[in-house]
Amino acid sequence: MSVARLADIAEQAGVSEATVSRVLNGKAGVSPKTRQAVLAALDILGYERPARLRRRSAGLIGLITPELNNPIFPAFTQVIEQVLTRYGYTPVLCTQTPGGSTEDELVELLVERGVTGIVFISGLHADLTADTERYARLAGRGVPYVLINGYNAKIAAPFVSPDDRAAARMAVQHLAELGHRRIGMTVGPNRFVPVQRKVEGFVEAMRTLLDLPPDEAEKLVQHSLFSVEGGQAAAGPLLDRGCTGFVCGSDLMAFGVIRAVRQRGLRVPEDVSVVGFDDSPLIAFADPPLTTVRQPVEAMGAAAVDALLEELRGNPAQRTEFVFQPELVARGSTAAAPAS
Amino acid sequence: MSVARLADIAEQAGVSEATVSRVLNGKAGVSPKTRQAVLAALDILGYERPARLRRRSAGLIGLITPELNNPIFPAFTQVIEQVLTRYGYTPVLCTQTPGGSTEDELVELLVERGVTGIVFISGLHADLTADTERYARLAGRGVPYVLINGYNAKIAAPFVSPDDRAAARMAVQHLAELGHRRIGMTVGPNRFVPVQRKVEGFVEAMRTLLDLPPDEAEKLVQHSLFSVEGGQAAAGPLLDRGCTGFVCGSDLMAFGVIRAVRQRGLRVPEDVSVVGFDDSPLIAFADPPLTTVRQPVEAMGAAAVDALLEELRGNPAQRTEFVFQPELVARGSTAAAPAS
Repeated sequence: MSVARLADIAEQAGVSEATVSRVLNGKAGVSPKTRQAVLAALDILGYERPARLRRRSAGLIGLITPELNNPIFPAFTQVIEQVLTRYGYTPVLCTQTPGGSTEDELVELLVERGVTGIVFISGLHADLTADTERYARLAGRGVPYVLINGYNAKIAAPFVSPDDRAAARMAVQHLAELGHRRIGMTVGPNRFVPVQRKVEGFVEAMRTLLDLPPDEAEKLVQHSLFSVEGGQAAAGPLLDRGCTGFVCGSDLMAFGVIRAVRQRGLRVPEDVSVVGFDDSPLIAFADPPLTTVRQPVEAMGAAAVDALLEELRGNPAQRTEFVFQPELVARGSTAAAPAS
Repeated sequence: MSVARLADIAEQAGVSEATVSRVLNGKAGVSPKTRQAVLAALDILGYERPARLRRRSAGLIGLITPELNNPIFPAFTQVIEQVLTRYGYTPVLCTQTPGGSTEDELVELLVERGVTGIVFISGLHADLTADTERYARLAGRGVPYVLINGYNAKIAAPFVSPDDRAAARMAVQHLAELGHRRIGMTVGPNRFVPVQRKVEGFVEAMRTLLDLPPDEAEKLVQHSLFSVEGGQAAAGPLLDRGCTGFVCGSDLMAFGVIRAVRQRGLRVPEDVSVVGFDDSPLIAFADPPLTTVRQPVEAMGAAAVDALLEELRGNPAQRTEFVFQPELVARGSTAAAPAS
């Protein structure tokens, strides 16, 4: 390793060149944290690690996500992978593909390959029409798992979720404070637990904050597909009914709503305000920068791994739901309601 | 399955309800394409597949990516996974994490778990300082593989790349046609093949289109990290030198350049025009919608899988580079050069 590179690595890691040397040569007297910082600097700068610093994996952990188009899934994946590798585990990601692999097929494959545990993100556990027996069978085969986003009391496992009801309430409150009175909601299909909870939070917030009777609020909820096109399709009927504020089930759906608003010659946020849900690094670069309710991805990912590691150590984690508070990030897609 | 669901699925798949019924009941007389469309509709609408329609996997294919923060990697992953599952293979994604798993560790783990083949995306094969022996060893173990983005003549395998030189030339040409004369380039570290090629394309285009001598053009190239922060850091010196047009090595770097421009109180595209590289679904929603050079992700992913499948069938694919033409997508981050 040349001196120039040593200096680069030392700067990136925030340690001395002598410390970098010690780590690269496997010398003693370096704290695990410093060692980790130097290895991370090596990786970030793209230098290859010396062979002696390679480690054996503690085991394979499967992650199963529904897709990668919604950037919240790569975001969760990245966080969970970072935490897992910190503990010496190797994560492998399996993604369902339309017409391709199903969750059950992916589980089967992971179990056959001797996976140590599984993290499900927005899996069938979130779908109230899906059979929960599959999770009992998996537990019976001695594979611990943890479930992110969605809760089902029939499944005995640790769950990690954002508070979906609070998320919807925050969005309604933000819009109500900006003077919006006619607020609509665009969300995914009603059979998913996070959707039902968001609808509950929306209806309740419309009642307490805007005095709207629940049956009236329910008419302002449009179910559609979880995608840009889904949001766009759902926005039409709500714009027809004069909605000036939108609470969306995902940032992708919010982009679809914005597109529908613009197609009618209206502007965001001058004429219509839109609040997303999820947040991930690129959402801040959107046009307009999207106001959204952020899932605490870092905290949720770390909690999911913690629960799984407890299970792996033979200390069953509580079979309950760990609920995380989301936060409203106000950016440029919301503004005062137009004077009517 | 209720009649309402049958109708939903039939509409989504673009076939009759009777055909949906035939597929779900495993009856004969349905073409593989129609069967696939019905299964895809089931998956898109989120319905569970009947147990009898589940398939055995033809084998595990490993995908190795450097990270998931840059949306081009989830985009490649999604396409490759879709094509692989169409052929009955099950893709598993392994991502390198700073301080965590390295490419070699991931390869070792995949081989140990009996992987049928590996697709490397922007791996060490793209890094001219990395040892290429690892790929020869992998071939010696009977694991076929294909490499995306980056070429090294010392590695005997099929490569799939975009034409990086052409990408840089397209960006310079677009800016030159808009009247920009002072054009800078922000790219990643120089040891990566795609970076070197983009720099070559840039220098050549500046010579042929703007009559700038190569040694002058080289001074307008800033190397930095592949990230928003990298682009932001690289932009400063080029803005100091009066650049009004930027050619960026990735869309993330372009977002960093835009941020640096705005921090100086300048506007994009009125004062400074910025061209990204990569493109992926959310880039069109950026502020401003980013003009970028699109990697033909679908075609590249399909070609990578084709080459790998040929290898798996015992027909070695050509040990050469398959080069794909990128295309410039003009959006809102470029405009006529300001009158000086």
